[in-house]
Amino acid sequence: MTDMPWTPDFETYPINARIRDAVSSDDAITLTWDDGLRSSYDLYLLRENSPEPTTIHPLSRELHMSILDLPEALRVERLGVTDDGVLEVKWGHSKITSRYHPGWLRSHAWFEDQPQTALPALTPYTLWDADCLQQPPSQPGIDTLEQPPLFLTWLETISEYGIARLRGLPDEDGLLEKIASRVGTLRESNFGRIYEVRIKHDPDSNAYTSVELPQHIDLPTREQPPGLQFLLCRVNSTSGGEGIYVDGFRIAQILREEHAEDFRALCEIPWVFNSRSPDFDYRSQRPVIALNADGSYAEIRFNAWLRAPLKAPLEQQHRAYRAFRCFARYAQDPALQLSFRYEPGDLLAFDNRRILHGRKAFSATGGDRLLEGVYMDRDELASRIRILRRTFGGQPSSVPHHPHGA
Amino acid sequence: MTDMPWTPDFETYPINARIRDAVSSDDAITLTWDDGLRSSYDLYLLRENSPEPTTIHPLSRELHMSILDLPEALRVERLGVTDDGVLEVKWGHSKITSRYHPGWLRSHAWFEDQPQTALPALTPYTLWDADCLQQPPSQPGIDTLEQPPLFLTWLETISEYGIARLRGLPDEDGLLEKIASRVGTLRESNFGRIYEVRIKHDPDSNAYTSVELPQHIDLPTREQPPGLQFLLCRVNSTSGGEGIYVDGFRIAQILREEHAEDFRALCEIPWVFNSRSPDFDYRSQRPVIALNADGSYAEIRFNAWLRAPLKAPLEQQHRAYRAFRCFARYAQDPALQLSFRYEPGDLLAFDNRRILHGRKAFSATGGDRLLEGVYMDRDELASRIRILRRTFGGQPSSVPHHPHGA
Repeated sequence: MTDMPWTPDFETYPINARIRDAVSSDDAITLTWDDGLRSSYDLYLLRENSPEPTTIHPLSRELHMSILDLPEALRVERLGVTDDGVLEVKWGHSKITSRYHPGWLRSHAWFEDQPQTALPALTPYTLWDADCLQQPPSQPGIDTLEQPPLFLTWLETISEYGIARLRGLPDEDGLLEKIASRVGTLRESNFGRIYEVRIKHDPDSNAYTSVELPQHIDLPTREQPPGLQFLLCRVNSTSGGEGIYVDGFRIAQILREEHAEDFRALCEIPWVFNSRSPDFDYRSQRPVIALNADGSYAEIRFNAWLRAPLKAPLEQQHRAYRAFRCFARYAQDPALQLSFRYEPGDLLAFDNRRILHGRKAFSATGGDRLLEGVYMDRDELASRIRILRRTFGGQPSSVPHHPHGA
Repeated sequence: MTDMPWTPDFETYPINARIRDAVSSDDAITLTWDDGLRSSYDLYLLRENSPEPTTIHPLSRELHMSILDLPEALRVERLGVTDDGVLEVKWGHSKITSRYHPGWLRSHAWFEDQPQTALPALTPYTLWDADCLQQPPSQPGIDTLEQPPLFLTWLETISEYGIARLRGLPDEDGLLEKIASRVGTLRESNFGRIYEVRIKHDPDSNAYTSVELPQHIDLPTREQPPGLQFLLCRVNSTSGGEGIYVDGFRIAQILREEHAEDFRALCEIPWVFNSRSPDFDYRSQRPVIALNADGSYAEIRFNAWLRAPLKAPLEQQHRAYRAFRCFARYAQDPALQLSFRYEPGDLLAFDNRRILHGRKAFSATGGDRLLEGVYMDRDELASRIRILRRTFGGQPSSVPHHPHGA
């Protein structure tokens, strides 16, 4: 297939079906495939994704003409399928002939009964509680860093369970940033690019004291809190201070099934989350539970101590406080919690918009405790998984699972 | 008022009204104010915002007990208003007496007819086109950096118009980061912490060529694109390359009024925006126009060349491509555009989720052109405005405009 045209992106498209027939109408081209399926493409879709250098820049693979330069009514002058299975379109009022890769066409086809999304979840979400997960899913740290397929597995586990641990990492300055940067771009915050969780004498957050921290997410005060958090244990000779993690999506699921009215209140009533400091004043207003359009869980925004008083009619206050306390009870329920000691060399990575974390109080005398942390957005995890899958994964992530097989 | 209790935050609350009467019921306390207004507070709201050190940490001003440690049914044992106007609550089954600042109580009250939000917009949004704005709102750069009230004005202008310019800044390495950091925390991306817009020989983005860039937002491929962009012109001796800016909210307003069907399609149909590179693969799926719950404009996600082919039934494709082209026509319409030459020492700051930017093609020979850029989230702008207003603004931002006056 030396004559196969390039595609307007950097993906690889397997050719699992051949075009049997192509017909054009005023505003679309319809293909019939050799398995009998049909797919139709708006003419603008095809024209602006034409893989030739006057339309798509051959290096950046980005459209580099204005879509307004195209005529209002596109016209197909000639249409054909080559022996190699390439769709050729000669456009009217233009010198352009476009050659489309059949794998690309098939991959971008919409078929009957298919959900209208081209962006499926990277992995399934496996919801968990203390019954099915007694420890964070763990991998040997050094092997994971040295073997890209294991690194991919680690990332896929974060995506699926919302939490995954590397163990036995060396005690090395700068290691956290080095590992996190292999996933993607770090997200700074007012607490720094890399923050240290230890005792401060003038704390601007409860995190910097030795008190117990109930389950929470970090930075709920932002329009979009960080999607990922990495915590590396450097030192821990204190007693107490165990890490506690809970799957917020699992809590939402329980509420949905057993406390329908509280679930609705948590999805509907926006709380203001704010931070309190002389130097910054972050605020956001969002409900505790956010759902995707298909009803699946998008985000949990739960934090008891960064929550402003609710400004609402009294009935709404009652409803909101009742529901919030109901959520809090599950968040503190040992039946839902992972609890473990941070050992030096442990790296916890978790989805800060799904997994709640907390810690038991620890004794500040007679020991030292230092966790280093960084934030990141979910985008980075998704991008890295896609890139690694191009080389080490099975199917390229852009090829959908076709309901009829293909 | 030496006996006034502290408040569970760092705000200052003017005392504009006095409590005439306080009564408690099973689950609330209701205050009657001396202007006749009444406000009711859920008992949990009051209890967990009690300004004494066992509830709120006096340094971090954060709640530092578990809300689950409170009894299921709170009880008020004694209730009173001091001569100073402080509300005193002695809680049952507890040794706690809480003393509430009347200004805080008034500020957190919900009154009839009031919108149920404690998070009003920082400034009004003034929508603009070429008729009402011929140049970006501009301020002298050095004065703005030296005088905090002018710095606040600059930030408020960014919030109101979505764009504001500083002029006459010195040519100094590191200046962009210095200025942006005075606003807040920078947001890194795969293009770096600070990126340089100039010609690259192996461009991974159209931005790094000399071609015309039609109007767009940056990083539409992220779950939440950066809310702010700062562009500092360091060098410009090329011809062409003028900056073009358009108010995306103004386009949305025109569409809403004149192209209702296209407006709906742009609000409803999610496009996948993706980037194409061997090293990263960012994707998000969102509609072009996002509205707030009250119908106001939240976000514009418009970028022609980072848009994936729409995977949808043919009718939906037609609807989406028609609407997208309609938006694009307004985005390129000179009647809506600011157009100006970047002069060395100009710093453009704009809301990347509201304002579209672009540039004319420029001649790459016989001249040099260098823009430095950084991103930031909207959270940072809002936080900095609130902090500066505590000192230089009028009313503290948390005091609502009360509909009945106060």
